[in-house]
Amino acid sequence: MRRLAILGSTGSIGQQTLDIARAFPNRFKVIGLAGGKNTSLLAKQVEQFQPQLVYSALNLSLPNKVKFLSMEEMASHPEVDIVVVATAGKTGLAPTLAAIRASKKIALANKEILAMAGEIVTAEANRHHAQILPIDSEHSAVWQCLRGEKAEVARLILTASGGPFYHHSLSQLANVTAEEALRHPTWRMGKKVTIDSATLMNKGLEAIEAHWLFSIPFSKIEIVIHPQSIVHSLVEFTDGSLKAQLSFPDMHLPIQYALSYPKRLPNSELPRLDLVQVNSLAFEPVNYDNFPCLKLALEAGKKGGTYPSVLCAADEVATELFLANRTSFFGIAEIVAKTISLHRGTANPALDEILGAYTWARETALKLACEESLCWKQ
Amino acid sequence: MRRLAILGSTGSIGQQTLDIARAFPNRFKVIGLAGGKNTSLLAKQVEQFQPQLVYSALNLSLPNKVKFLSMEEMASHPEVDIVVVATAGKTGLAPTLAAIRASKKIALANKEILAMAGEIVTAEANRHHAQILPIDSEHSAVWQCLRGEKAEVARLILTASGGPFYHHSLSQLANVTAEEALRHPTWRMGKKVTIDSATLMNKGLEAIEAHWLFSIPFSKIEIVIHPQSIVHSLVEFTDGSLKAQLSFPDMHLPIQYALSYPKRLPNSELPRLDLVQVNSLAFEPVNYDNFPCLKLALEAGKKGGTYPSVLCAADEVATELFLANRTSFFGIAEIVAKTISLHRGTANPALDEILGAYTWARETALKLACEESLCWKQ
Repeated sequence: MRRLAILGSTGSIGQQTLDIARAFPNRFKVIGLAGGKNTSLLAKQVEQFQPQLVYSALNLSLPNKVKFLSMEEMASHPEVDIVVVATAGKTGLAPTLAAIRASKKIALANKEILAMAGEIVTAEANRHHAQILPIDSEHSAVWQCLRGEKAEVARLILTASGGPFYHHSLSQLANVTAEEALRHPTWRMGKKVTIDSATLMNKGLEAIEAHWLFSIPFSKIEIVIHPQSIVHSLVEFTDGSLKAQLSFPDMHLPIQYALSYPKRLPNSELPRLDLVQVNSLAFEPVNYDNFPCLKLALEAGKKGGTYPSVLCAADEVATELFLANRTSFFGIAEIVAKTISLHRGTANPALDEILGAYTWARETALKLACEESLCWKQ
Repeated sequence: MRRLAILGSTGSIGQQTLDIARAFPNRFKVIGLAGGKNTSLLAKQVEQFQPQLVYSALNLSLPNKVKFLSMEEMASHPEVDIVVVATAGKTGLAPTLAAIRASKKIALANKEILAMAGEIVTAEANRHHAQILPIDSEHSAVWQCLRGEKAEVARLILTASGGPFYHHSLSQLANVTAEEALRHPTWRMGKKVTIDSATLMNKGLEAIEAHWLFSIPFSKIEIVIHPQSIVHSLVEFTDGSLKAQLSFPDMHLPIQYALSYPKRLPNSELPRLDLVQVNSLAFEPVNYDNFPCLKLALEAGKKGGTYPSVLCAADEVATELFLANRTSFFGIAEIVAKTISLHRGTANPALDEILGAYTWARETALKLACEESLCWKQ
């Protein structure tokens, strides 16, 4: 029986993690739930799973036996075996580090943690023998392909659906709306991730994560467009052989794999893939000109230091503005690019420098967006 | 340094095995070569690789220091580490069993060995801790996908190119010639295998081999048509996740993988796969009506006992007749089907019963092909 603490239980990944826990009541016990703004859902989840530990960002009235505590306390609680980090943005960073220092297994869905602080997080995980189990479909695919293999990797090939606008021209892209961007062709995800998927920013963040998770240089990470989201990523080995992981696009599988690893559990609720029905798997080159966010993310990843943190913060501000219909599709990349251009990076930053750069970048992005007419008045 | 004996060194797989040995002179030493009818090529190979052990089916004059011996003696010779079985038909069976009983590693390319005598061969291999390393691209793919995994397999999905006639109608198929059948769209192989690939008989034999190699019931083996021969096979696990192995269709890779396992060796001579250039991977259902040989092979595999041996022998006779333009494409399946229908199977047969059934089936196939007008006079 593995005892789970789920940080971000009311989000998309959090809810799907609870589906897996529900499907295997004899294998997983939810003993901690942490939620953000959606207190009514958090209350329902607490009622159903009866966790002993709860964190709520907002006030929540619950039965007496529940213990309220911070996410850091929950993540390092002695009775927790696996901490599922399904928070958004930088919220999960401190709890993840707390879990690492308590040598927990960490099932990681929150992209920004490795993107912003990959060097610190992976170094601490090595020091404390804490295992980071990726939940992202791409990283789960790479992880599955590497299973049983030695370090004989020539390339990681991350697949990208390309999002809803992949075949749009530059002028079409200039006019897309948040509403259109939220209609992702293959994946159902939270709003921020869905916009990042439309700009391909998410693929850049995933490349940075892969760099840290699998200790692989950026020169060996490639991105290929694969619109069907069936092949979740591939690994090319030094002998030229490639391995790919395939499945119907559904996050339940990578979540379950991270929770049950190294076992694989039969789960009749998960959709099965029928290759004949799929019929054809397509692969296309990345169009970096139309998706400048991807280029910005890869550049920030290669520069390292505090740059990825600045990238994440500026992207958060820019996508918030886009979601509020206050900037355009290319406005996102312009806000991020200008913020990065104003940043003076720090190499091998400490955690407070990473967080400082983040705060600076949010403020800077918001300020210059308004000053330089990159956003429209409300 | 691994010391290799190559049985069938003058055939397609044998020659490609020597390419790999040539590429890694510090890793592989060819100490035994066994050839069939192509004595001039065998003599050249002996000159180049200077093996200490040679077998030649026909007379061959060689330098004095070379020791002539039988394939069984070579396969069990104390200085041999890996026996590459690249013979054709039943020729390799006795040497493979000799290698197994000497606890050698066996890199196996000869389909008939497991197809005809899978039960005996795998039981003996278990008893003598002899490892069978598959060289067939499909089995190598499955083997690579299973690497590091536990026995949590839901399905093996063997891919088939479909051969040169996959989209032919029944009436078109009735008139295809051996010359056309020998023009395989994706693979360069020996003649017998190329015809088996056009009739899909080869895929049936591979299913029988997979059944024995991976201890998997036929109900969990599926076949899917994949014309590009890039995805060499897939494994579906119990959680619904699939792993696939991909590479440019070139037998050097699976040969090298079997020889170097568990290492993977960088080899700049092997072609690299470019997914963007490939552009699309297609999958289609199998048309069993147009390819009756596949159905016959799967049925024989499921019946087990001496039936697969009869299948192999009858198929050999029938493809010989087809290659000599003495029977038609469907004549092959008819000869095989009639031979099988006349056979009284033996369950759990001993080796001599398997070989007896083989001899009986060759004679019967040849006789009934002529008597029942399934072949044309020369």
